[in-house]
Amino acid sequence: MSDRATPDPPARLTRWEQRTEVPLFAAGLLFLTGYAVRVLTPHEAEPWNDIALILVWSTWLLFLADYLIRLRLSGLGARFVPTHWLDTVVLLLPLLRPLRMVQVYQVVQRRRDRPRLSLYARVISYAGLTAVLLGFAAALAVYHFEHTVPGASIRSFGDAAWWACATLTTVGYGDATPVTFWGRVVAAGLMAGGLALLGAVTGSFSSWLIQVFTREDEKRPPERD
Amino acid sequence: MSDRATPDPPARLTRWEQRTEVPLFAAGLLFLTGYAVRVLTPHEAEPWNDIALILVWSTWLLFLADYLIRLRLSGLGARFVPTHWLDTVVLLLPLLRPLRMVQVYQVVQRRRDRPRLSLYARVISYAGLTAVLLGFAAALAVYHFEHTVPGASIRSFGDAAWWACATLTTVGYGDATPVTFWGRVVAAGLMAGGLALLGAVTGSFSSWLIQVFTREDEKRPPERD
Amino acid sequence: MSDRATPDPPARLTRWEQRTEVPLFAAGLLFLTGYAVRVLTPHEAEPWNDIALILVWSTWLLFLADYLIRLRLSGLGARFVPTHWLDTVVLLLPLLRPLRMVQVYQVVQRRRDRPRLSLYARVISYAGLTAVLLGFAAALAVYHFEHTVPGASIRSFGDAAWWACATLTTVGYGDATPVTFWGRVVAAGLMAGGLALLGAVTGSFSSWLIQVFTREDEKRPPERD
Amino acid sequence: MSDRATPDPPARLTRWEQRTEVPLFAAGLLFLTGYAVRVLTPHEAEPWNDIALILVWSTWLLFLADYLIRLRLSGLGARFVPTHWLDTVVLLLPLLRPLRMVQVYQVVQRRRDRPRLSLYARVISYAGLTAVLLGFAAALAVYHFEHTVPGASIRSFGDAAWWACATLTTVGYGDATPVTFWGRVVAAGLMAGGLALLGAVTGSFSSWLIQVFTREDEKRPPERD
Repeated sequence: MSDRATPDPPARLTRWEQRTEVPLFAAGLLFLTGYAVRVLTPHEAEPWNDIALILVWSTWLLFLADYLIRLRLSGLGARFVPTHWLDTVVLLLPLLRPLRMVQVYQVVQRRRDRPRLSLYARVISYAGLTAVLLGFAAALAVYHFEHTVPGASIRSFGDAAWWACATLTTVGYGDATPVTFWGRVVAAGLMAGGLALLGAVTGSFSSWLIQVFTREDEKRPPERD
Repeated sequence: MSDRATPDPPARLTRWEQRTEVPLFAAGLLFLTGYAVRVLTPHEAEPWNDIALILVWSTWLLFLADYLIRLRLSGLGARFVPTHWLDTVVLLLPLLRPLRMVQVYQVVQRRRDRPRLSLYARVISYAGLTAVLLGFAAALAVYHFEHTVPGASIRSFGDAAWWACATLTTVGYGDATPVTFWGRVVAAGLMAGGLALLGAVTGSFSSWLIQVFTREDEKRPPERD
Repeated sequence: MSDRATPDPPARLTRWEQRTEVPLFAAGLLFLTGYAVRVLTPHEAEPWNDIALILVWSTWLLFLADYLIRLRLSGLGARFVPTHWLDTVVLLLPLLRPLRMVQVYQVVQRRRDRPRLSLYARVISYAGLTAVLLGFAAALAVYHFEHTVPGASIRSFGDAAWWACATLTTVGYGDATPVTFWGRVVAAGLMAGGLALLGAVTGSFSSWLIQVFTREDEKRPPERD
Repeated sequence: MSDRATPDPPARLTRWEQRTEVPLFAAGLLFLTGYAVRVLTPHEAEPWNDIALILVWSTWLLFLADYLIRLRLSGLGARFVPTHWLDTVVLLLPLLRPLRMVQVYQVVQRRRDRPRLSLYARVISYAGLTAVLLGFAAALAVYHFEHTVPGASIRSFGDAAWWACATLTTVGYGDATPVTFWGRVVAAGLMAGGLALLGAVTGSFSSWLIQVFTREDEKRPPERD
């Protein structure tokens, strides 16, 4: 979020980041899938549960390796940690990884050499996709913390997904809410992160609609008024 | 939502679309009416229930015919389906038809040769009207899925309409909420679609109010300040 | 909300509107006070309840007289009703009167010859004040419809005011919600009207904050960046 | 919030305000800490509860002294009270002090001679920080009023913090809501103040995201479109 006059990153770091964007995106999806299988299947369900655990750990090791290589390539030493604080947070809480899956969409589009979407469409698709992935990760985590607690209102993953929808859109029915400490911490994080993203979706949609109506005005011949 | 450099549609397609705008809008309203009668009257209530069923199917066949004719006229072949994905979705889920009832309002106004509303007023009236129609369709669908389920909090169409109001405005009291899987899917769709539309209404109203206050400034003689 | 090319109103109408602005604002406050006393005191509580009833009717007759005089002065005849539809609605539902108390704030300020507030401050104070008055009127009406109904969650005016706060801000806890048909109609109206106004408050506050931070930038000497 | 043509404050007042910014910020944090200890520890818990009481009163006396000195230096006499109404309100309700902790962040940054954040990042960090501090103060006050009341849903400070999160983000689950008069007054204040601040956060984030996507457009070589 800062525009601080950070020195330009070395060319080797930039190249590394460009080359790893797509594999890391795939690893992020694998991590989410592995976590989902781990959380949603009963722990006795061999072999899926074990495979999922291995998947989660191996993708996380990939993220760690990427982080260390970039720390090395940046030439910043320990200063890399505070200047790339979002990367650091995402490494420690990999369920926030959707926040770092940003550029891949554009990379894919660039490679395929297709004309790009308009500005607002890109903001909407980026912020909307990130919000959906964050909501999915939060629903998994909340389900994980809540579903075995007596008196909880979130008993199935369906409830958790429903809760995530109602929370992200700020509707907040309250028919399914977390009751444990960690469930509420995850919920507070989802509110803070998700609402800003959805606000960007709504704001961009509004701007896009006004743009469409304005453009149509210009196309039409001037009327008497 | 895309500004992709699609080739201009053939003149015949444009003419077709202009000529069918008003009939299709009327067919959309008939579809909603038929669906409403079908859902709200008991199934033994002859003949209304049967008439409504016929109405729903015949209007849907109209939509299908229009889709196929436009596919033909566009000269795109199978590529018509992805490039007009919103039309395709609306054909398969006709309750989303309010999303395609866009231009008719302006067409009607143009024909009557009346001076147009200001930019913000048009965005507000278009987005507000679409949101109301979507909310009505969602209330019907949720009532359809919920009202016979034991333990449901939405028992009458009044409850469903009240739920749709509270959801569209993100108030979300939670005194009436869907409990079935399909009811919640409809609700999630209403949140996603409706909130963006209502955000456009609020944003435009805010811009319009600032415009009014600015204009008034310019009218008044300059003061000491 | 329309910018239609309506002919300028005759000078006599403009003079009438300027001269009646402050008295009508006072009458609007009296109407709200009278309605509040009527609703909040028990019907046997003589003489306050009767005085309030007289106040409500006499102020409404004032509104009617003003409406008819303006209809006459406008020279539009029956066309006055649709072109001034908001005035017509407010005449029939006088609890919406806060929506027409717009200009009085500026008139008072102009007369006192004080320097004006900035654009955003005026939008915030106008929209905020209107929202508060609308919320107060809605709380009274909902209390009126709900407080005698068995099973209602709004039993006191305190509950109604708390409900109006939670509704206007879209928080919507759901611990106090209308359950009657008319209570819900009032609530839907408050959502529709109030949210747009509060959106204008939030939007203007946000713009004002960005303006303040920008201005401060310009004051400071340029830095190394 | 006003841009009224107030005469420039005397140089001595400006110097005083610059010199007291950081100490007053520290005093504000101490006040919040003291209030938190006072509210959260049982009243028999000597000596912490007494120390906290002394801390609360001594910091408040500091605020009073600062207010009186600024009143004196301003040379406005009694007119200082209405023209600095926000300072007056904050003096009487010191839990609103976060609203006056504005400039200190920038002061600290300026002293450390670090390059500044971008406009949007500063609005987000200022409004977000103020909202968090206000939410913390409101959670303390609501806990203070509610936790001993029979039938309350806010029984622990954890509940109060959870309630403050859900209220500030307008999610409003309703699983924990104030039931006492003073608890609801605090809640209404939090809604009014906090929502405007969070609106500023969301709006700025949205603008910042659009800026980032626009900038990236300019960097890329022009494509065929």
